[in-house]
Amino acid sequence: MVNLAETVVDHSNRRDHQSLIAADARHVLHPWADLSALGQAGSLVISEAGGVRVKDADGRSYLDAIGGMWCMTLGYGREELAEAMAEQARQMAYYTPFGDITSEPATRLAEMLAELAPGDINRVHFTTGGSTAVESAIRTAHYFFAAQGRPEKFHVLSRINAYHGGTYLTQSLSGKAADRTHFHYEADFVHHLSSPGYDPDISEISAEERLRQLLDEMEAEIARIGAENIACFIAEPILASGGVLTPPEGYQKATLDLCRKHDILYISDEVVTGFGRLGHFFASEVRFGLAPDMIITAKGLTSGYQPLGAVLISDRISDAISAAAPKDKPVFSNGFTYSGHPVACATAIANIEIMQREDICGHVREVGPYFIDRLRALTDKSIVYTVRGDHLMACVECWTGEEAGPTARNMALAQRVDQYCQEAGLLVRPYENLCILSPPLVITREDIDRIVAILGAALDRATQDLRAGTIG
Amino acid sequence: MVNLAETVVDHSNRRDHQSLIAADARHVLHPWADLSALGQAGSLVISEAGGVRVKDADGRSYLDAIGGMWCMTLGYGREELAEAMAEQARQMAYYTPFGDITSEPATRLAEMLAELAPGDINRVHFTTGGSTAVESAIRTAHYFFAAQGRPEKFHVLSRINAYHGGTYLTQSLSGKAADRTHFHYEADFVHHLSSPGYDPDISEISAEERLRQLLDEMEAEIARIGAENIACFIAEPILASGGVLTPPEGYQKATLDLCRKHDILYISDEVVTGFGRLGHFFASEVRFGLAPDMIITAKGLTSGYQPLGAVLISDRISDAISAAAPKDKPVFSNGFTYSGHPVACATAIANIEIMQREDICGHVREVGPYFIDRLRALTDKSIVYTVRGDHLMACVECWTGEEAGPTARNMALAQRVDQYCQEAGLLVRPYENLCILSPPLVITREDIDRIVAILGAALDRATQDLRAGTIG
Repeated sequence: MVNLAETVVDHSNRRDHQSLIAADARHVLHPWADLSALGQAGSLVISEAGGVRVKDADGRSYLDAIGGMWCMTLGYGREELAEAMAEQARQMAYYTPFGDITSEPATRLAEMLAELAPGDINRVHFTTGGSTAVESAIRTAHYFFAAQGRPEKFHVLSRINAYHGGTYLTQSLSGKAADRTHFHYEADFVHHLSSPGYDPDISEISAEERLRQLLDEMEAEIARIGAENIACFIAEPILASGGVLTPPEGYQKATLDLCRKHDILYISDEVVTGFGRLGHFFASEVRFGLAPDMIITAKGLTSGYQPLGAVLISDRISDAISAAAPKDKPVFSNGFTYSGHPVACATAIANIEIMQREDICGHVREVGPYFIDRLRALTDKSIVYTVRGDHLMACVECWTGEEAGPTARNMALAQRVDQYCQEAGLLVRPYENLCILSPPLVITREDIDRIVAILGAALDRATQDLRAGTIG
Repeated sequence: MVNLAETVVDHSNRRDHQSLIAADARHVLHPWADLSALGQAGSLVISEAGGVRVKDADGRSYLDAIGGMWCMTLGYGREELAEAMAEQARQMAYYTPFGDITSEPATRLAEMLAELAPGDINRVHFTTGGSTAVESAIRTAHYFFAAQGRPEKFHVLSRINAYHGGTYLTQSLSGKAADRTHFHYEADFVHHLSSPGYDPDISEISAEERLRQLLDEMEAEIARIGAENIACFIAEPILASGGVLTPPEGYQKATLDLCRKHDILYISDEVVTGFGRLGHFFASEVRFGLAPDMIITAKGLTSGYQPLGAVLISDRISDAISAAAPKDKPVFSNGFTYSGHPVACATAIANIEIMQREDICGHVREVGPYFIDRLRALTDKSIVYTVRGDHLMACVECWTGEEAGPTARNMALAQRVDQYCQEAGLLVRPYENLCILSPPLVITREDIDRIVAILGAALDRATQDLRAGTIG
């Protein structure tokens, strides 16, 4: 049904599928693994990919509506990106970025990011991905105040349903109940405001009312902790993996104003919303009227071809840090061996060049509304509670007609929909009772139609199962 | 003087050196940047590299005795590694590793690591580098006890002069005074034992006596905190960036025994000591008689060509976690988008294949002792306080003849030595009053002789400066 015309693959070194699955079961502890099934063979091995499609080790092809993991923006099998990394690896694969040592790719990429970023955001601190970029941003906020004699101003405001990473601190900042397990979490200086998502289709109050509630709560929380103790507020403009949650109109700008009023730094986590998913390199300013103090980027930064992240820092912050650093010990002791890795940076440069040449952001602004419109037609189906999204990030929320939300039965229903999608050659991302979609940015109207058709058929099959009593 | 015969470089896209340096000054915040010089142009731009040599943007060539940053093991310009990454990027650049989805490179690499790792260490949790691997190991230790109903057993023992990474938690685990600046550090559950380095050339007590002191202190600290509150002990077998500090003979095994006695997990951080630097893929067991519960690896894992790290986990731990995970929420909510990135894993596989084919570990076991012997001849020089090291990790400690250690004058002296090395075409890593050396593992006896000759001449020039009163 689906072709992978773009890829030419050498199969000579290919391992037998079953032995690969057995080795995975024996030797890999996956991120977000189901521990109750650890050691049991059952992996899906993705072996080849081209354009917006991936193939498993048995040769089954799937339309990838996940976009790798929100990150595969330009599509699979881009020769120009493969060449960029190989060429840099040949010329100068790596050298330490510490102190004042640099490489041409890191320098050029920093210059490009400063040009693309809004306001006075002109300085780049590279990391290895989104988690380490959030870590570095929080630490920078800590440094900013401590160097100015205010070390007690180190608390952080985050939100329920936020996702900011997989380290100790960034998981503590995250607020997804599904991720709170037997790990330890920082609770002394991390505080969570309510989830700000507002869906007009299912809300019983107006957007204005919801916005007022959220701002009142934030004011109250700042008063409770004391603004003099709070370093920063971190926020995704649209909460992505927490469930594609869009705050009520005006929220982003109003929370920034609150932060300014209380001398709290604003960190905009654009790991998902940046690099084209909402039709712009950065959405903070263009879409939400935000001039944040720092922006986090990763994922689409390299189109997922390389691990790379960055904190983009405003001149106001970097100038203040530089001025306040103690004369006898002015070192900014933060960073990683692989900060600004030349191979990753060369890939990111090629990625930006392709995005600009092919006007990927313009394409998203054109097909994004079509994608959302077509998906929203699925709300007619009885097991669809709501469909929400913005350009190329969206989700379908499933319900059995009983209680709404992530109940066991609603989650079982959504899993059935995911399963039927996969059987029909479409990969969507299951999360609680949601089917999350974030296709590659190069997706065509034709493939959007195919996504919606397969998803619609899967919803119909699951509806029949629900009626037949075979769910949950 | 030095040739870069291996590299063939296309200069057509080369940026003017001065404009690169200006862009770096304007737009990059480097790891461990000197904040007092932020915005001032002065970077060293490394532009090309081949074998054990790098070239700056002005065409000056340097013998790289830093090995990138302890990580460039196979040397620069390896076509086979460039090809491995490009080939994987063409075939399948990325897909999510979450849940039970996998790729052939990640699976094959996990299988190879399980084969190389000691004891019952057979399970691999991939990350993006050393910092995120340490994060994941600590979190795994937390999960291990919490899932078994002991959430209060989450404290961590580390050591002064340790280095474990650049995130909030890993910087808090680290114990280098030079890195403690205006950032915030975790102090509630992180505890530091004394630095265990023992240098027989300068110590006033015997190794046995020092070992006894260290073990007594560890016992006392465990008693003070309460073993029932301590999840794990993390330790580099030889403390690398803290100053190439080797504990007294028997320390590693004895601390493991103490941990076993108190049901404390032992995490061996082999980011530097692993992948050949001491002549073995992992040094824990072969060199130090250690069968740790987890091993951290990164750096040499890809020969520095790609950002990648991993926690290697014993079956005892992974089986227990699997058995103890709650039935209604068995998810291991830890990991990263780029965990097990296919391009990075494909590069690591090619790296291991080359290491085995060329018997890199055998080469290190042969030239390593020669390297240390030749360096130790420098102890005859008056400004050399001591020379210490093990195979291809070593340092020269400078002193003015007055107080020993990292005093302002000793540090100024060491910086002068570094400067003279760089002028003569040799890069060594400055840290406090040390010149740290960790050359690529493919270093020849001839280049070892050259390193020692240049370093010796630099020490002589600095000695003259000291006598002339132009230091500090």
